[in-house]
Amino acid sequence: MPNQFDPPSGTRDFLAAEYAKRERAFGVLRSVFASYGFEPLQTPAFERLDVLLGKYGDEADKLVFKILRRGEHEASGEADLALRYDMTVPLARVAAAYGSQLPTPYKRYAMGSVWRADRPGRGRFREFTQCDIDTLGSASPLADAEVLCVHHDALAALGLTDFTILINSRQVLSGLLEVFAVPPELGAGVLTSLDKLDKLSPPAVIEEIAGRGLAEQAAAELVTTMTAEDATDRIRMALKPSETGMAGLEEVDLLVSLAGAQVPPGRVTFEPRMVRGLSYYTGPIWELTAAGVPGSLGGGGRYDQLIAQLGGPDVPATGSSLGIERVLMLLPDQVAGRPGRIDVAVTVLADDLTAQSFALAAQARAAGLRASVYLGSSGKLGRQLKWANDAGARWAVIYGNAEEEAGAVTVRNMTTGEQASVPVGDLGAHFAELAAG
Amino acid sequence: MPNQFDPPSGTRDFLAAEYAKRERAFGVLRSVFASYGFEPLQTPAFERLDVLLGKYGDEADKLVFKILRRGEHEASGEADLALRYDMTVPLARVAAAYGSQLPTPYKRYAMGSVWRADRPGRGRFREFTQCDIDTLGSASPLADAEVLCVHHDALAALGLTDFTILINSRQVLSGLLEVFAVPPELGAGVLTSLDKLDKLSPPAVIEEIAGRGLAEQAAAELVTTMTAEDATDRIRMALKPSETGMAGLEEVDLLVSLAGAQVPPGRVTFEPRMVRGLSYYTGPIWELTAAGVPGSLGGGGRYDQLIAQLGGPDVPATGSSLGIERVLMLLPDQVAGRPGRIDVAVTVLADDLTAQSFALAAQARAAGLRASVYLGSSGKLGRQLKWANDAGARWAVIYGNAEEEAGAVTVRNMTTGEQASVPVGDLGAHFAELAAG
Repeated sequence: MPNQFDPPSGTRDFLAAEYAKRERAFGVLRSVFASYGFEPLQTPAFERLDVLLGKYGDEADKLVFKILRRGEHEASGEADLALRYDMTVPLARVAAAYGSQLPTPYKRYAMGSVWRADRPGRGRFREFTQCDIDTLGSASPLADAEVLCVHHDALAALGLTDFTILINSRQVLSGLLEVFAVPPELGAGVLTSLDKLDKLSPPAVIEEIAGRGLAEQAAAELVTTMTAEDATDRIRMALKPSETGMAGLEEVDLLVSLAGAQVPPGRVTFEPRMVRGLSYYTGPIWELTAAGVPGSLGGGGRYDQLIAQLGGPDVPATGSSLGIERVLMLLPDQVAGRPGRIDVAVTVLADDLTAQSFALAAQARAAGLRASVYLGSSGKLGRQLKWANDAGARWAVIYGNAEEEAGAVTVRNMTTGEQASVPVGDLGAHFAELAAG
Repeated sequence: MPNQFDPPSGTRDFLAAEYAKRERAFGVLRSVFASYGFEPLQTPAFERLDVLLGKYGDEADKLVFKILRRGEHEASGEADLALRYDMTVPLARVAAAYGSQLPTPYKRYAMGSVWRADRPGRGRFREFTQCDIDTLGSASPLADAEVLCVHHDALAALGLTDFTILINSRQVLSGLLEVFAVPPELGAGVLTSLDKLDKLSPPAVIEEIAGRGLAEQAAAELVTTMTAEDATDRIRMALKPSETGMAGLEEVDLLVSLAGAQVPPGRVTFEPRMVRGLSYYTGPIWELTAAGVPGSLGGGGRYDQLIAQLGGPDVPATGSSLGIERVLMLLPDQVAGRPGRIDVAVTVLADDLTAQSFALAAQARAAGLRASVYLGSSGKLGRQLKWANDAGARWAVIYGNAEEEAGAVTVRNMTTGEQASVPVGDLGAHFAELAAG
């Protein structure tokens, strides 16, 4: 039940454990991206409205969070800024703004929040992290293979094993439309219907395609070919008369062979039925899927005209986007080891010993341990040890009047309950030992 | 001169070098915060408008970026959400929302963007990173000392040495108003004027205070005491009749002694003229200042009523905020070492060797090196070596037809120009050696 203290609909607060899990994953991703020579880019949370709107069509425009003008203009009810909807529009702007300052090719990753006023649902948020890698300025198929392999390696580095990469090509799809004589104006619709073959039965898809205006027989032939047991072979045969189709097969085969050399066997396959929704792709396309996860974990492809269409320079481009929120749901919540907030809890047992307790904590930190003094109001050892335990401390350092007189502190192992008396002068070495153990 | 591809006014794009500098600093800060047992909290970029507005007065409300309602409500021109203005309002909401799930005390840090529609200027942005640490639920002076020391240690860990921490107390200031018989309704104004003593001459401040309605003689006595060479001693004497003032001195002295035990000598001092602007402080206050930096690098204090005022639970609280954008400007831009994007650049010299080149880069990465293949269109070695050099690669791996025949690759040291022929079978070991060196 939502209440007044919940974060806004579709957004989340990340408390320590969840934050740590996310940051750990982001760190792994950054290191994989860097290992391929991709560099980070961070753009503002918002862009000018005219930069963002009209780039992805009316449906996307409706999902943009718009920011009201400020000051005297606020009353106009007009917006002049909008929250980032994706990482691609800012990339196009950056490519236009910094052109020659950027390396060629410009290989960048962007990891950060994007905002969409979508209806929130399970695994669908209004504020979520997007994780994109793109290469601008290279037409080489190696650039496609590289971004694909980066995302493969990223998932593998996160510990995922049970996933597959489906590869296809826009040119294969164009070739198919050509050899099955689909009129150009029906092309996009037919592809959209074919994309449903993993959810709908072949007859249902045939009906849908026929409904779009293609002759029933042509629709049936197309769907039968695509769903045959030996569909891949049949499609290869069927594409022979189409130059575009054959070029598409060639780029698919090259991509499968380049990626296949780097990833475990069977993880990369040609999937001629895989269409990616977005119409801006111009070459190879791919999708990462995992067993038991509806939809995809991410995907991408070559999009040679998009950067110019978005207002950037006219450069070839290829990129891949990871559905990091879905990936995060597949990762275990806990890491191994004691999840405590601190290693060392220092008691504060007498007013006149406050400064000494404070200094003891500093000494533990100097040895590389996480340490805190007791900040509550009870002077009782039992209460303070309970706090130490709740904070997940591995050791409690007890320093009261008896310890002061003896010139030693009591170090208690919070797991075993064992206690040792350590002379104040030996404490630095003792902490160093605990830190190393 | 701004152009259409610049980021919105007051915001910035962070390309690789700047991003790396910032992330490095944030990493240092996170590790200092964790060493004291502070845990991270991340809240959404926006809050519901009613959560944000009316919390800091009209002036602050004007600086809030408001988000237009969506869908059919957009035309109303009304806003229902607003970008985060600071980290304290979200903290109060989180404390109210998760109460018993949070540890007691709740020691959290928050590092992330906040947005204010301020007039942009040098070092003043509309989107900037705020870095706050706060402890909720402890009335102990150790909690004040702890957050103060955390921020000291954070600056020190970033490499800053030339900075000072000024300490004062709201109770000292209240005591001063009391002993100089300033009527309660003039108190806040008088403190605001006293705060200007570092910019204005004493006579100017006397005049300003008199202008606020305090008798000229009382104003003169107050300012003379505050600006005397032995001001601290005089103030200690003057406060004797005030219980509040003496309590304030006691908390200042304790804080100076606790912090003083941990930081280099002379870095912490009692500064009775330091007033912090915000009226919500209830106990000790502090400010971090650096030589040559106008204003402060940060500061904080105890604010026992604020969390409840902001809609959270009624808990004592203390916190410190670091002006991280200013701190970043004090840090050097470059780190030591070759700043290249990659370690190993792999040439692609023949179409039929593409897959091998791709695999060579993967082998280098497997050894822990950052590696990339050439993604350009030139087949010429010279052009590819120029790219390797531009990318800052330490080694180029050259693999052409001659190398294929010999079953070896040529590894070129990009700094010295020296080349070695390494048999393909020895390459893994060779890369491991390069990575270790």
